Amino acid sequence: MSESDSDCDHRPVLDPAIRVVLMPKDTNAHGTIFGGVILSYIDIAAAIEARKHTVRKIVTKAMHEVVFVAPVFVGDLVSFYTELVRIGCTSITVKVIVEADRISHPSQRVLVTEAEVVYVAVDENRRPVPIRDN
Amino acid sequence: MSESDSDCDHRPVLDPAIRVVLMPKDTNAHGTIFGGVILSYIDIAAAIEARKHTVRKIVTKAMHEVVFVAPVFVGDLVSFYTELVRIGCTSITVKVIVEADRISHPSQRVLVTEAEVVYVAVDENRRPVPIRDN
Amino acid sequence: MSESDSDCDHRPVLDPAIRVVLMPKDTNAHGTIFGGVILSYIDIAAAIEARKHTVRKIVTKAMHEVVFVAPVFVGDLVSFYTELVRIGCTSITVKVIVEADRISHPSQRVLVTEAEVVYVAVDENRRPVPIRDN
Amino acid sequence: MSESDSDCDHRPVLDPAIRVVLMPKDTNAHGTIFGGVILSYIDIAAAIEARKHTVRKIVTKAMHEVVFVAPVFVGDLVSFYTELVRIGCTSITVKVIVEADRISHPSQRVLVTEAEVVYVAVDENRRPVPIRDN
Amino acid sequence: MSESDSDCDHRPVLDPAIRVVLMPKDTNAHGTIFGGVILSYIDIAAAIEARKHTVRKIVTKAMHEVVFVAPVFVGDLVSFYTELVRIGCTSITVKVIVEADRISHPSQRVLVTEAEVVYVAVDENRRPVPIRDN
Amino acid sequence: MSESDSDCDHRPVLDPAIRVVLMPKDTNAHGTIFGGVILSYIDIAAAIEARKHTVRKIVTKAMHEVVFVAPVFVGDLVSFYTELVRIGCTSITVKVIVEADRISHPSQRVLVTEAEVVYVAVDENRRPVPIRDN
Repeated sequence: MSESDSDCDHRPVLDPAIRVVLMPKDTNAHGTIFGGVILSYIDIAAAIEARKHTVRKIVTKAMHEVVFVAPVFVGDLVSFYTELVRIGCTSITVKVIVEADRISHPSQRVLVTEAEVVYVAVDENRRPVPIRDN
Repeated sequence: MSESDSDCDHRPVLDPAIRVVLMPKDTNAHGTIFGGVILSYIDIAAAIEARKHTVRKIVTKAMHEVVFVAPVFVGDLVSFYTELVRIGCTSITVKVIVEADRISHPSQRVLVTEAEVVYVAVDENRRPVPIRDN
Repeated sequence: MSESDSDCDHRPVLDPAIRVVLMPKDTNAHGTIFGGVILSYIDIAAAIEARKHTVRKIVTKAMHEVVFVAPVFVGDLVSFYTELVRIGCTSITVKVIVEADRISHPSQRVLVTEAEVVYVAVDENRRPVPIRDN
Repeated sequence: MSESDSDCDHRPVLDPAIRVVLMPKDTNAHGTIFGGVILSYIDIAAAIEARKHTVRKIVTKAMHEVVFVAPVFVGDLVSFYTELVRIGCTSITVKVIVEADRISHPSQRVLVTEAEVVYVAVDENRRPVPIRDN
Repeated sequence: MSESDSDCDHRPVLDPAIRVVLMPKDTNAHGTIFGGVILSYIDIAAAIEARKHTVRKIVTKAMHEVVFVAPVFVGDLVSFYTELVRIGCTSITVKVIVEADRISHPSQRVLVTEAEVVYVAVDENRRPVPIRDN
Repeated sequence: MSESDSDCDHRPVLDPAIRVVLMPKDTNAHGTIFGGVILSYIDIAAAIEARKHTVRKIVTKAMHEVVFVAPVFVGDLVSFYTELVRIGCTSITVKVIVEADRISHPSQRVLVTEAEVVYVAVDENRRPVPIRDN
């Protein structure tokens, strides 16, 4: 997940796309939050950002490699920040930064993971269409 | 729900306690989001604020009157902002302001409702205990 | 939540509007049922009562102050009793009484809370309309 | 599902074991409530009745044949009435009668199905134990 | 649940209709998977098999007696195998065999239960119609 | 099931790790299944495969790039096939192949996506430990 756009390296974002509390119903058989729950929220968060940039219907096309650098636990408050990475002819790429506030240490915030999600604008037959009219 | 504390009238909050996208699974038999879903998130959001101010276990004691001034729809991005209202001997009161970004008009933000939730700090036998040590 | 209508003070209700068993998926990160779950069910129960009195589409307008007088636990059987409080021109007010049978002591029933929910009849553009034709 | 016990033929039950509103999240891909949702609630309802008659841990042993005589729809208010059928040495059999109030015709109540569920009392190693001490 | 059809006794099935991991959200107040969850999946699995044999809309008509011969636990991988039992004029009967791989002993597979589910083909007014055109 | 490349091109897998029917509750505000639901199931499926190869507790470390080549719809039967890719000192990499049977054309099976998920074996303090004893 290279990030050569310099304006993406610092953190200009203040407002999370979504922010949720992880609940016992999000746990797997071992009592821990499984990675899939976070991946699911990453897609929701990235789609919110993508929809700001097009009136077209969009579908998830790809998610670039995701590496989990810290775990999340039940009760953690998890924030999903988004940044627009690139607008192509028919696609939009969004970066998502995931951070967790520990329930046991509310002042301690840790980076959980980062991801890039690619959306494609489609027509009613799901064929790619330009992101923007002109 | 009178709000005579002048410092609560303007909006000093920038960062939502939680922010969620309402999904089809949150609808009632009429296809609309029912009020109870919002009330449930209000409690989650207020508890996050309350926990910043005490290490005690807290339980929901009361929710003051809630008036819905605008509806929410499937796909809306709903933000729950919180403000500490009051810390009593054994209780904490938190105000929650709920705003929605319409999926159809992302730039249009509407106030949905406001609420105040009261939490009480309790010991392991659920008897009230002081919010703060001393 | 004053209740000056004398016929609301005793308990003429026999049949719950809804009655549910609280499950582990209803718990928060602390393993307890959070108040929002009960508030959500209160709205569902009150709407059932309200719909008996109008054929109009109704939306939740307000919930008066709710005070939790006893906690609920996983496995509790929770009953939501309803009473019609008032029919206004465009609104219906319903009282909900919430009681729990403890899983550990099935014969022990406790009052959890009481609430009043106000519904407004609306047309397809969500403008208030009279509850009753005439 | 023969019901030769004459005292089970009339309806002495007034109070449902559970009563729920079916929601859009309970539908299958065809937009209808699938039978499995009702079967799941039947088990919950019958277990409530069974637990009134023993302090032992119980597990579901069997469900006798279930025939659906009427469908249920989103928004229906569905009541599950229970009757104790039989207490054996290590088992309890409970009958469940399922009725629906149509959302479109609240005064119209239809029988959905009936079922009998058998529970067995077990110890911590899941071996059968007597229902009652003596 | 008699099983006199000799061609049902051996196991010609290789491919499960559905296969799921049971999660903490599927547990009851006692921390165990309740029977209703399995019954619900049995209906989903059987419907998949039934739909292979008709283009008609089908509804669940009955489930023959189900006996649980082994429990399931959180984390178990549960497989639902199906076999077509019978195609009648307006109905289809499907047998479901439920097996569990224990999370603690993945190589140990146990039979959980067997069931037969009957579906009826219906038209848009929910009246029975022939399974097959001709 | 070695992964020396050429033997990955044909399909040696017969038995899905998991197989599920997508339900209306899995849809987003636009009525389509969102990518995050599939990503969540990919993690569940891959973990089942990974657990066959170690008795250690494992956590999701990474998911390599995922490209969606076909959409999934409500009612689709979605199969998740897994193959062991690599066992490292403290990690296990699993490939997941996702295929969908269309509800409208049960005989038509389409490839949805492929993914690789990496798990790391950890001790009770979440520090990496060898996959295998010796």
